[in-house]
Amino acid sequence: MNYNIVIHNGTIITMNSSLDIIENGVLCIKNGNLAKIESLENDAPLPDGETIIDAQGGIIMPGLVNTHTHLPMSLFRGLADDLPLSVWLNEHMFPAESKYITPESVRIGTLLSCVEMLLSGTTTCCDGYFYEDHVAWAVNEAGMRAILGQGVIDFPAPGIPDPADNIKNAAAFIQKWRNISPLITPSIFCHSPYTCSKATLKKAKDIADAEAVLFQIHAAETKDEYVRIQTEHQSTPINYLDEIGIIDKNALLVHAVWLDDNDINTIAVRGASVSHNPESNMKLASGIAPVPALLKAGVTVGLGTDGCASNNNLDLISEMDFAAKLHKVIALDPTLMDAVTVLKMATIQGAKALGLDDIIGSLEIGKKADVIVIDTRKPHLVPVYNPVSHIVYAAQGSDIRDVIVNGQLLVKDRKILTVDLENTIEKVIRFSKTV
Amino acid sequence: MNYNIVIHNGTIITMNSSLDIIENGVLCIKNGNLAKIESLENDAPLPDGETIIDAQGGIIMPGLVNTHTHLPMSLFRGLADDLPLSVWLNEHMFPAESKYITPESVRIGTLLSCVEMLLSGTTTCCDGYFYEDHVAWAVNEAGMRAILGQGVIDFPAPGIPDPADNIKNAAAFIQKWRNISPLITPSIFCHSPYTCSKATLKKAKDIADAEAVLFQIHAAETKDEYVRIQTEHQSTPINYLDEIGIIDKNALLVHAVWLDDNDINTIAVRGASVSHNPESNMKLASGIAPVPALLKAGVTVGLGTDGCASNNNLDLISEMDFAAKLHKVIALDPTLMDAVTVLKMATIQGAKALGLDDIIGSLEIGKKADVIVIDTRKPHLVPVYNPVSHIVYAAQGSDIRDVIVNGQLLVKDRKILTVDLENTIEKVIRFSKTV
Repeated sequence: MNYNIVIHNGTIITMNSSLDIIENGVLCIKNGNLAKIESLENDAPLPDGETIIDAQGGIIMPGLVNTHTHLPMSLFRGLADDLPLSVWLNEHMFPAESKYITPESVRIGTLLSCVEMLLSGTTTCCDGYFYEDHVAWAVNEAGMRAILGQGVIDFPAPGIPDPADNIKNAAAFIQKWRNISPLITPSIFCHSPYTCSKATLKKAKDIADAEAVLFQIHAAETKDEYVRIQTEHQSTPINYLDEIGIIDKNALLVHAVWLDDNDINTIAVRGASVSHNPESNMKLASGIAPVPALLKAGVTVGLGTDGCASNNNLDLISEMDFAAKLHKVIALDPTLMDAVTVLKMATIQGAKALGLDDIIGSLEIGKKADVIVIDTRKPHLVPVYNPVSHIVYAAQGSDIRDVIVNGQLLVKDRKILTVDLENTIEKVIRFSKTV
Repeated sequence: MNYNIVIHNGTIITMNSSLDIIENGVLCIKNGNLAKIESLENDAPLPDGETIIDAQGGIIMPGLVNTHTHLPMSLFRGLADDLPLSVWLNEHMFPAESKYITPESVRIGTLLSCVEMLLSGTTTCCDGYFYEDHVAWAVNEAGMRAILGQGVIDFPAPGIPDPADNIKNAAAFIQKWRNISPLITPSIFCHSPYTCSKATLKKAKDIADAEAVLFQIHAAETKDEYVRIQTEHQSTPINYLDEIGIIDKNALLVHAVWLDDNDINTIAVRGASVSHNPESNMKLASGIAPVPALLKAGVTVGLGTDGCASNNNLDLISEMDFAAKLHKVIALDPTLMDAVTVLKMATIQGAKALGLDDIIGSLEIGKKADVIVIDTRKPHLVPVYNPVSHIVYAAQGSDIRDVIVNGQLLVKDRKILTVDLENTIEKVIRFSKTV
């Protein structure tokens, strides 16, 4: 059999259910799928492949899954730092978005974000923003896999001057992107329980159910939100959303910081998933999501970077390091959130949170070929006693050498092959001079 | 005037007392010192220089100062993770050190650590370990600036089978390294108040005072230590050390996690400095140092990575990100530990903590030329609205392009010029196979 791509001479971290790690591994890709994953016997010949990639003793693993982004916001990276979330959002981000977010800027910001993510090992992201149709075309052009939702908010927003049109736009996006690309899965994204009315949330949920798509929502992010929902609805944010019928197995609850025990139980019993964004929650001082308790209750928790303006990067390698270390020190327990648990959150659990774990998130025969190769021949990555803890605690995004999505080689020796990076950077710099 | 090195076409972050940022900057180095720092007028010719470095629109800034390392421990990076500090130290690190730490392994581990640090922008470190003489030769060979202390501990240690010799060895190290190299400043390093007796601590302090060198000590790192010192000495660790006379302006208190208000006041009044190591404290779940309170009290606080086995890297760029975000979320105050405060900790305040702020830590005429150039033409570093927050929140260690220490170019286009990296990596890998 002739394969499209053969990767060899590396340690394969499969992230399959037995967490197999294969030394001197060879991984073969055929028609976009994983066709062979095994250890190469001594002196055995390499399988035939149109493209042969020598991992040079590095690590071969599943591409990372970023469960929460706002892709075009890379345009505002570093525009307003060290500010309270309400000031940051109301006095900086919302005004900047209303002034500068256009189809063309959305396209450029999305391309920039896709390149940043691919170069740091992320092969799938889950996004919600405005002009999401333009986000989708840019993601597809970059060659990434994504779940994308047109943003729903009860204010005038970029591209939707009349909020009465927000649901209609979001529904049209789902219809349009159902069958355009194998990489793009449409979704719906309601901004939050405090920026969408109960009627809007209900309508959006009905569409999500009718179309069987993921329902993304920022929920229980800040203390302000918690207090506001308590005041307005005499309920916790999670309980309020549950009463509307939103907390179920198609819901992705983003942040989920301000939870009581009952909320954790509700999320677990309903089978909803959580996107944990520690760097954003820390930088904006939103609070600390009770992730160890969520995991103990059996909730599927993926990792997310959040938008670039609140992080200020889209690097899941760094996000893993933060997730592992934050919860250890809060509980004064260094055994919590061990490296394997965190790597699962960034791969197979993230895929499960998005409903994509049957096709991605681990290296298993028959799954889609979303694969990354890490170059470990660097001073900060030797020696290697434990490749998993290496990825979580020692690696940087820039250690990712090659990236394959859906069987297509997108990054080769740290060069992005699908996007004109120089041109994109020029356009972003030109954009920033107008802000 | 002809300069040795001229760096131009970048934004200079001076970190001087007015925090000047110079657009289109030119920085000139002569005989190891900073000789000119200014904005290049339009059409003005570049100053003459033997070596001209084009920063290509990037950032030119002072080299970073890592106030706490155990350089040879890079040999044990990832050997034992997700464990309590006492288990990690007593069951893994101390046994590994006693078995594998030799003059030759110390040399190799130190070279590896120096390359990792230089490639991530650190130009000065403060270290304490065993066989420190071999550490010093390797640091000097790599061309880094360092404050180095031979470790003092009341147990048999690598190179000092009889602890009765520990002070004598440490004193001999100070004598020997007083005048060998302009890069190396000797110091003394007592492991901790629970591994050194009162008599040992007193003798070490007497030597530090007589020789006018920095006294480094791990202090108030864990709750276990706090409880133990309370039980044995009816005192907090800081108060106990103060009673011995150790807390003064020549003391560098490493970690300083378990402090009460009185301890903070003692540190401030005595003029001692603190080395804050957030990633190590988080990974080992030691606790959270009250850094905002220390800063408010006027204490000089520098940043440190700690040894590689407890981090698992020596990357101060990442350490800044952790320091900024950790304290914000703990206090639920995003304005705390803003980017400038944190960058000061990694540069001029770190230099001050080590007593080197008259010669390094900022870019000012007459200071030693310890300079780094950051390549910002990367997808995760555009656009640039605020170069300081960019370094703290968006950059990676691998964005450092060029590194100069004491006027010598050590890293050029990410290639280390002073160490045979391939050979060092080979030796480290060979070492790791014996562990």
